[in-house]
Amino acid sequence: MNTSKLLSTISKYQGVRSFASSIPKTPTPDFPGEYKEPVLKTANIPGPQSIALSAKLNKLQDPRAAHFFADYANSRGNYIADVDGNILLDLYCQIASIPIGYNNPELIKAAKSDKWVSAIINRPSLGVLPPKDWPALIENSFMQVAPKGLHQIFTAMCGSCANECAYKAVFMHYQHVKRGGAPFSPEELSSCMSNKAPGSPSLSILSFKKGFHGRTFGTLSTTRSKAIHKLDIPAFDWPAATFPQLKYPLDKYVKENREIEDQCLAEVEHLIKTWHIPVAGLIVEPIQAEGGDNHATPYFFQGLRDITKRHGVSMIVDEVQTGMGATGKFWAHEHWNLTSPPDIVTFSKKMQAAGFYHNIDYRPSESYRNFNTWMGDPVRALELEVVVEQIKKNHLLDTVNITGDYLMKGLNDFQVKYPHLVKNLRGQGTFVAFDLPSGADRDAVVNSLRLKGVETGGCGVDAIRMRPMLVAQPYHIAQFFDRFDATLQEFSKKK
Amino acid sequence: MNTSKLLSTISKYQGVRSFASSIPKTPTPDFPGEYKEPVLKTANIPGPQSIALSAKLNKLQDPRAAHFFADYANSRGNYIADVDGNILLDLYCQIASIPIGYNNPELIKAAKSDKWVSAIINRPSLGVLPPKDWPALIENSFMQVAPKGLHQIFTAMCGSCANECAYKAVFMHYQHVKRGGAPFSPEELSSCMSNKAPGSPSLSILSFKKGFHGRTFGTLSTTRSKAIHKLDIPAFDWPAATFPQLKYPLDKYVKENREIEDQCLAEVEHLIKTWHIPVAGLIVEPIQAEGGDNHATPYFFQGLRDITKRHGVSMIVDEVQTGMGATGKFWAHEHWNLTSPPDIVTFSKKMQAAGFYHNIDYRPSESYRNFNTWMGDPVRALELEVVVEQIKKNHLLDTVNITGDYLMKGLNDFQVKYPHLVKNLRGQGTFVAFDLPSGADRDAVVNSLRLKGVETGGCGVDAIRMRPMLVAQPYHIAQFFDRFDATLQEFSKKK
Repeated sequence: MNTSKLLSTISKYQGVRSFASSIPKTPTPDFPGEYKEPVLKTANIPGPQSIALSAKLNKLQDPRAAHFFADYANSRGNYIADVDGNILLDLYCQIASIPIGYNNPELIKAAKSDKWVSAIINRPSLGVLPPKDWPALIENSFMQVAPKGLHQIFTAMCGSCANECAYKAVFMHYQHVKRGGAPFSPEELSSCMSNKAPGSPSLSILSFKKGFHGRTFGTLSTTRSKAIHKLDIPAFDWPAATFPQLKYPLDKYVKENREIEDQCLAEVEHLIKTWHIPVAGLIVEPIQAEGGDNHATPYFFQGLRDITKRHGVSMIVDEVQTGMGATGKFWAHEHWNLTSPPDIVTFSKKMQAAGFYHNIDYRPSESYRNFNTWMGDPVRALELEVVVEQIKKNHLLDTVNITGDYLMKGLNDFQVKYPHLVKNLRGQGTFVAFDLPSGADRDAVVNSLRLKGVETGGCGVDAIRMRPMLVAQPYHIAQFFDRFDATLQEFSKKK
Repeated sequence: MNTSKLLSTISKYQGVRSFASSIPKTPTPDFPGEYKEPVLKTANIPGPQSIALSAKLNKLQDPRAAHFFADYANSRGNYIADVDGNILLDLYCQIASIPIGYNNPELIKAAKSDKWVSAIINRPSLGVLPPKDWPALIENSFMQVAPKGLHQIFTAMCGSCANECAYKAVFMHYQHVKRGGAPFSPEELSSCMSNKAPGSPSLSILSFKKGFHGRTFGTLSTTRSKAIHKLDIPAFDWPAATFPQLKYPLDKYVKENREIEDQCLAEVEHLIKTWHIPVAGLIVEPIQAEGGDNHATPYFFQGLRDITKRHGVSMIVDEVQTGMGATGKFWAHEHWNLTSPPDIVTFSKKMQAAGFYHNIDYRPSESYRNFNTWMGDPVRALELEVVVEQIKKNHLLDTVNITGDYLMKGLNDFQVKYPHLVKNLRGQGTFVAFDLPSGADRDAVVNSLRLKGVETGGCGVDAIRMRPMLVAQPYHIAQFFDRFDATLQEFSKKK
């Protein structure tokens, strides 16, 4: 797009009020001092300042994945500022990890408190010398939102480490059960030092094709999203089952989808029975995010729970991206009404603090077994405390449901209006995605939206994923609709 | 030890000035408002408040590794406060990870600045939307102390992840060279999705027996310190070479140690030539810490550099524990004067920020290959900026050398006075250790020292490791000497 054409686009879309005629209200107050709408200052994004900084960064670090350089001091609520003065509506939110808005005043206030300052600059080895307020802080943060049936918390630094440590907990539990609680044998104690069985047993975690669970060696062995994540890295020979590839909308294809899910469940059970390495655990995302926002129904997940129970396989639900309210409930797996809870639920991203919930069976037989220097970061638990308080006080889950409903209805209108462009709309809460005809089209639409002032992200082969903050309101979505309509009109003319 | 006996010990050691007759001065100012010496309030540590908190934590999280619950608000400089009012001289420092003292006034001031607050509460996805000050911040923090010859930085969240991502960089580099820069083959692109070669190649990292490099699945496959770290966890079948088990003091046993190191070097080369999985990289600690503070000489490390160069094996130096000045130079490997720099140097702990330095050859062929959501945490880079500034301004490396020299000389006196108890003294800077006759004796001495007001830590089978902060002064060490002498007198009577 050349500069003059873009500038005309800018003038056209600055000042447009809304696409939808009726914008619902929510119980959440407006974000204090937020921008009114996107503001565009440069003909391209990244603009000249971002490009100059990228060249500078290139001398020190790989800058190739950067969309632009952000000005966080000038970002506010749902809007991210860049170094060139552009203000974008952020519906991607640092890969789904900003919970309650940039420069949230409550977080600013809390961050300046002595409690936070001490937590930041006196970073403890939490397992060895926990702070005096640590048990109370766990109660006021993690335990305020603990999934039903899981009363223990393991704290970590990031989502990959949360899953990695969850796998370790599963393997330790599996071997503990197998030993019948007996102590380690001399053979186990010696063989593990040379990475050999029986001390380093050959066990596996079953995951799903198109799943994403992290980038470290254990989690990467379960990640099956894209080749670019896995190429050249040694991996464990662990099994991968097919995740249901359902037809959308789910309520229209109930019978077809049930058949697909039954086939997938049968494949899971077959793999557990026949894989050449015993399957100790299974990990699944409630909605496969990186792999393309693939949904399944509660029936499927209940089936997984039944199969894992039947075969003594631990069930890990990876809520790193789905957790913390984005689906309209605090945890996506609450939508399933399982007959018994998952064994482990992992989290990170919008929780800001990372780790996993578990029950006492998954505490290792001895201390120092599932361990590291920091065991998480107390300042992130302090952050979670504020975020949870804000979610409750400002009714953010209600808002997610109202905003999500508005988003889904509006996108459905787009699907009707542009059926050759917008396909397979699916979502829960504001955790919403749709497909474009191809990956190239998807990339072009993401780019076009950015140049109109809306930041979104891709996933899978050809999908756009919406990952608004919990403080996104229908009127923010209306701004997206305006710009999306313009983008699709341009694309329709080209096609 | 019963209560009355302990209380008499308390009264005896509160108020003792110093063990050594002459305590050297350093160019570093006293820590503002620091305690004068340890203060003991309870007959045991953990005291009653710590025990009550441990019971409370037990309902939420595994508390078994906790020594006591700390009162960080009341900790200051080299002294850590506990919830029972005890003040301990901290020579272990959160497993070697506190750089410039608890509640350092410069860190408090910085933490309250808008810059820090924004970095904490607006945590970016650094790879996607870096902050505008990120290149400048890298210059002012990481690059101020970059190891010679390594101009690029990969940022991560913790030491395990730093090593894990370094291994990935090594594997990508190895395959890139093997392909001669050609693009991925269709077979690679498809096979990696099922964790099979050629896309997920069978390659290995060679590490050393007794080495410790982390707890995630990749790093744990190279960790060979203790069975408790490894039991029940599947591991890659990677090779482990013998790390030199030298005789101390090193300068007394030059000839014997040279022979030992030659044997180890021969074993490394033999393993690289014969291991059934190609060796892409080698990782080594300058001083094996967790595994017992085992030293080797510059000759050995130069030999490793020569062998790795000869066989196209990447050399990773793990400076997670040795880095950031503890050995008297900023990086321990600076003591070696290598003919060419290591390929990768990893760090965490006292750096507070984690990651690795590398040269441009270890940047992957495409973006998003060695990647994750956060790619480190900018607030820890801001912390590093202040710490580096303080190291320079207050001449902390000089102080480490003076304090370390005082510590080594004093401990040598103990070795002479109690030859049946204190053995194999070794150290560099303040990175100092010695052996006790047995692991049980070691644990008893660590416990006795704690009850006299000094926090130390164990490593290996029977060693005590000293990991003072960079702001530890000889007069702090003198307080340790007083209490250590008392402990050893008690032990001498028992033996």
